[in-house]
Amino acid sequence: MTLTDLRHSLDFSQLGKDMYQLVAELYPICRSITGDGVRETLTRLHKHIPLTTHEVPSGTQVFDWTVPKEWNIRDAYIRDSRGVKIVEFKESNLHVMSYSVPVDCRMTLRQLRPHLFTLPDHQDWIPYRTSYYEERWGFCLRHSQLLRLRDDEEYDVLIDSTLQDGYLTYAESFLPGDSPDEILISAHVCHPSLCNDNLSGVSLATFMAKSLATIPHRFSYRFLFIPGTIGAITWLSRNESQVSRIRHGIVLTCVGDSGAYTYKKSRRGAVEIDRAFTHVLKHLGSGNRVLDFVPYGYDERQFCSPGFNLPVGCFMRTPHGQFPEYHTSADNLEFIHPRNLSESLRTSLSVFDILENNRAYLNQNPKCEPQLGKRGLYRAIGGSNTDTDILAMLWVLNLSDGEHALLDIAESSGIPFDAVTRVAALLEEHGLLSEKSK
Amino acid sequence: MTLTDLRHSLDFSQLGKDMYQLVAELYPICRSITGDGVRETLTRLHKHIPLTTHEVPSGTQVFDWTVPKEWNIRDAYIRDSRGVKIVEFKESNLHVMSYSVPVDCRMTLRQLRPHLFTLPDHQDWIPYRTSYYEERWGFCLRHSQLLRLRDDEEYDVLIDSTLQDGYLTYAESFLPGDSPDEILISAHVCHPSLCNDNLSGVSLATFMAKSLATIPHRFSYRFLFIPGTIGAITWLSRNESQVSRIRHGIVLTCVGDSGAYTYKKSRRGAVEIDRAFTHVLKHLGSGNRVLDFVPYGYDERQFCSPGFNLPVGCFMRTPHGQFPEYHTSADNLEFIHPRNLSESLRTSLSVFDILENNRAYLNQNPKCEPQLGKRGLYRAIGGSNTDTDILAMLWVLNLSDGEHALLDIAESSGIPFDAVTRVAALLEEHGLLSEKSK
Amino acid sequence: MTLTDLRHSLDFSQLGKDMYQLVAELYPICRSITGDGVRETLTRLHKHIPLTTHEVPSGTQVFDWTVPKEWNIRDAYIRDSRGVKIVEFKESNLHVMSYSVPVDCRMTLRQLRPHLFTLPDHQDWIPYRTSYYEERWGFCLRHSQLLRLRDDEEYDVLIDSTLQDGYLTYAESFLPGDSPDEILISAHVCHPSLCNDNLSGVSLATFMAKSLATIPHRFSYRFLFIPGTIGAITWLSRNESQVSRIRHGIVLTCVGDSGAYTYKKSRRGAVEIDRAFTHVLKHLGSGNRVLDFVPYGYDERQFCSPGFNLPVGCFMRTPHGQFPEYHTSADNLEFIHPRNLSESLRTSLSVFDILENNRAYLNQNPKCEPQLGKRGLYRAIGGSNTDTDILAMLWVLNLSDGEHALLDIAESSGIPFDAVTRVAALLEEHGLLSEKSK
Repeated sequence: MTLTDLRHSLDFSQLGKDMYQLVAELYPICRSITGDGVRETLTRLHKHIPLTTHEVPSGTQVFDWTVPKEWNIRDAYIRDSRGVKIVEFKESNLHVMSYSVPVDCRMTLRQLRPHLFTLPDHQDWIPYRTSYYEERWGFCLRHSQLLRLRDDEEYDVLIDSTLQDGYLTYAESFLPGDSPDEILISAHVCHPSLCNDNLSGVSLATFMAKSLATIPHRFSYRFLFIPGTIGAITWLSRNESQVSRIRHGIVLTCVGDSGAYTYKKSRRGAVEIDRAFTHVLKHLGSGNRVLDFVPYGYDERQFCSPGFNLPVGCFMRTPHGQFPEYHTSADNLEFIHPRNLSESLRTSLSVFDILENNRAYLNQNPKCEPQLGKRGLYRAIGGSNTDTDILAMLWVLNLSDGEHALLDIAESSGIPFDAVTRVAALLEEHGLLSEKSK
Repeated sequence: MTLTDLRHSLDFSQLGKDMYQLVAELYPICRSITGDGVRETLTRLHKHIPLTTHEVPSGTQVFDWTVPKEWNIRDAYIRDSRGVKIVEFKESNLHVMSYSVPVDCRMTLRQLRPHLFTLPDHQDWIPYRTSYYEERWGFCLRHSQLLRLRDDEEYDVLIDSTLQDGYLTYAESFLPGDSPDEILISAHVCHPSLCNDNLSGVSLATFMAKSLATIPHRFSYRFLFIPGTIGAITWLSRNESQVSRIRHGIVLTCVGDSGAYTYKKSRRGAVEIDRAFTHVLKHLGSGNRVLDFVPYGYDERQFCSPGFNLPVGCFMRTPHGQFPEYHTSADNLEFIHPRNLSESLRTSLSVFDILENNRAYLNQNPKCEPQLGKRGLYRAIGGSNTDTDILAMLWVLNLSDGEHALLDIAESSGIPFDAVTRVAALLEEHGLLSEKSK
Repeated sequence: MTLTDLRHSLDFSQLGKDMYQLVAELYPICRSITGDGVRETLTRLHKHIPLTTHEVPSGTQVFDWTVPKEWNIRDAYIRDSRGVKIVEFKESNLHVMSYSVPVDCRMTLRQLRPHLFTLPDHQDWIPYRTSYYEERWGFCLRHSQLLRLRDDEEYDVLIDSTLQDGYLTYAESFLPGDSPDEILISAHVCHPSLCNDNLSGVSLATFMAKSLATIPHRFSYRFLFIPGTIGAITWLSRNESQVSRIRHGIVLTCVGDSGAYTYKKSRRGAVEIDRAFTHVLKHLGSGNRVLDFVPYGYDERQFCSPGFNLPVGCFMRTPHGQFPEYHTSADNLEFIHPRNLSESLRTSLSVFDILENNRAYLNQNPKCEPQLGKRGLYRAIGGSNTDTDILAMLWVLNLSDGEHALLDIAESSGIPFDAVTRVAALLEEHGLLSEKSK
């Protein structure tokens, strides 16, 4: 079965439910850039797809960075003088600033205040904060909770965490293809109970791998489940000699919300994956956006740093920072939907299908048009309007001059890549096209 | 007399009448891709211009195609049981599907129905249908006629046609110029009683040739009067070694209706004829359209097939399929007008004038501006606004650096090519410009 | 002190007053393309800046032109029969057509009429007219004055001028820089009592030179104060072997009115000064215009003639001919304002600052991002929005690959050049960037 066939046979409705279920399963786990939450997450992904986990010791130098200490947390709370736990880690792991150092003391609100973070504009949402590279501690709470704290009261503050030498954990799923050339798919796994950013991306990558594992494919696919920034840097540092195999790449994030699609181009700006996503999003209809590369965002920052400059874009629905729920407790299981997840999968597979099938052909009858009619490829009665397939055949024949691959033809003609590919196969069967040797 | 002078001395009003008269004369003839109708048409064109007629035998292989049998028709009708001829070839040659095989029998409406073609949306128009490459027969009739046929009646059906080995007929008119480099003009002659598509193009080509025959010109001009598709393929097949002489080319069709002009670019997209038509249409005013190449339409499909890729565009008013009268009996003598025909001629000759005169010059005084005033080329009193000719002179002087020909200068400056050419001649007279040797 | 520091320390309010005062001081002087008015003007500029004056004899051949005779004028009037001077040079030097030959006679209005110029659309404005290269005489007067002249009256007409062998006078101010590469600034000094065109440009050039003379700079700056057209041609003719030193250049004119800025690009169209002005005007806000080169206007016509093709643009507010006061007595001290002059200076210095600082750097840590946080270059608490400086740092790091200079980065990122330069310096201090050797 080809990827094209697979795309048309998958039950996306069921896949959406399964993708959502995976998000729901992973949602309660407290992840950070290191620690047992990441390990637990990867263990659960391994039930779905082949996965190799890597553990990189704290203190390992990775380019300009150092793998940090491993952080784990068991409990945390703020307790008032009556013994009531006002803010509690067990209620939401967002309550503790990620990488908070341990603390266990009693303090006044005045002393506590600099360690508290809220969202005054969204009083019932808990913000998400981190302090990976400076040793601090803090609590994130609802602004409505903060307003109930009293100046004249003392609070017991506990963070039962450890920050000590350990490992940075990441995993790879590798699906070998006919060619050693690779398509890289990367999703960050370092965010705690946040759904769109980025359990949606983790689930999408998992189900991509699960789907592609069932069929043969031209490219090898390498899926990375890594902590953001330090994970990408660590992976690049350990795989520097291998990155030349990467022909196309994509970072996945925020793919479960209800917004239109956003594709952010690679730094190179017009490589094949940029063009393939642009083509697919254009034909899916208006509202979808294709953005130029900017050197901030997700791990495309690292993949597209000037020393690597890999052909890696970023696929999203609503971009980070453009939905108010971003990096708050409102990015929860209600903010994403099964259908959004499955449509993101469908769309991504369409793009991979272009990459798999984008070939150049040579018209075997380049002087004048071939007579399609005698081969049964044309309508029998002249005079009616040409239909899409005939148009597609004429485009493919006209542009198969050795200078244009099928995606070029789809772009020039405005005809969907699927239709272009289908008639190219038909014309090849009839001896009118021959694949151009590389 | 130069072409520029000719353009300004022609009586376009009278030419329009003559062009229309030629269409009217050719209108009743039943043409197809072969047969006596084409021969008769070419004989009449020969009264206007030098013409060489070629006869290519049925069965001749031309690239992927085979020259078909020759088709001729003498009579055809559908007659009801009372002996009334309900549909009759002699009333309109559109009534018979072109290339219908002979038939002579009595049949019920049920048997006849699959052979009848109508236009339900335009009940009083007869459609135009062909079946060149599949042996069939059929009648085209007004939908109002169809509605009067009765299920319980039998009809006598006659098509007195022959489809047998013969010839494909086409003609060339060649006007030698100073150079063996050619401008190709092609018009299809295979449509029966249809005026805009394409007696308008046939008449335009004829009067172009008639006009150009009266003056010397730089390029050689080759006019083709050929059946569509198979004619172009036949001509290319027989002239493959000569096509490298074609510097510019144009297919003429639908040039008699009242719509704005449409120029469809060659496959190359920015060759000189593309730029010349674009320039002329732009300066003629808004509403005119310049379209990118697409691999369907008229015989530019063959001239621009990848194995030839000739610099050939297509000049139209309203494109095929964009006027409801297209390929129906409503594309008649009322649908076109003398003034539209003559304006199409005027516009085409403007384009040829650009091609004839597009040269590069070298500014002989490239360091600072030359003093136009001492040569009488400038207004005497400073301070008033510069006028168009002075602007044109400054543009020509500034850009005549060996990198820009006159059409480049017209494009950069937005000044009409005529004005650019006129001042270039003036500057050359005064020794300020010298033609760049090739 | 660097140019950047200077820009931020100048008192532009006071500078505006000083610039306006210089215009007011020069306003009464009767300038033309030669003569004592130009000399007197240059003498006064010399009080502000170092200046070398050149005198080129009449009759000197300069490319296609000849330095004309020197013109001077002492008095002129039209006097009616009652002895009343109706039109008088001493009231406005615009009353006499520049380069008028001497005349002293009595004549009827009928005889006088061909020598009179008015503006019927602006009856109280005196037009400005010249006749440099044809020996004529004429008076320019208010249309309201013309209407009072009587057909039945004779008038005494006097022009006490001399047109004889002498000199064309121009001056240069040269500010040597670290490099012999030059920035050329040119302003025409040939207009009599007209403020925007071009005492505004003369004053701007003077105060540019005055400001730049106080600081070190990378480029050498050469300021030309020359009569329009013949002055530029004369200078180019005498400095032909030196012009290859000119890296950037700008013609200054009409910089004192209240209109938005207009930058007209050099003939090359995308050289550094074109891009620097475009960048600065874009960030100053909407309404500012960047125009393509056209071969008419001011002395950029000569600098950009094809034999030189220098990278010279033209900086204006409202372009010549687009304000009704242009070349009339209404282009007076009320038409310009101190603030407009000083803002034109501020804007020009911003552009020079770009030219001075536009360097390419190499990212010293090109594989993945460097860790900004450990160098104190990043916000400590993750999760809040990135601010402009961090964005600028990421852009500079990402694009400092040897292919992009700082202006390229400013253009790609949309971040003002100043901010890009500032973070580049910061990154260089931290060893993250190193200037690319040329």
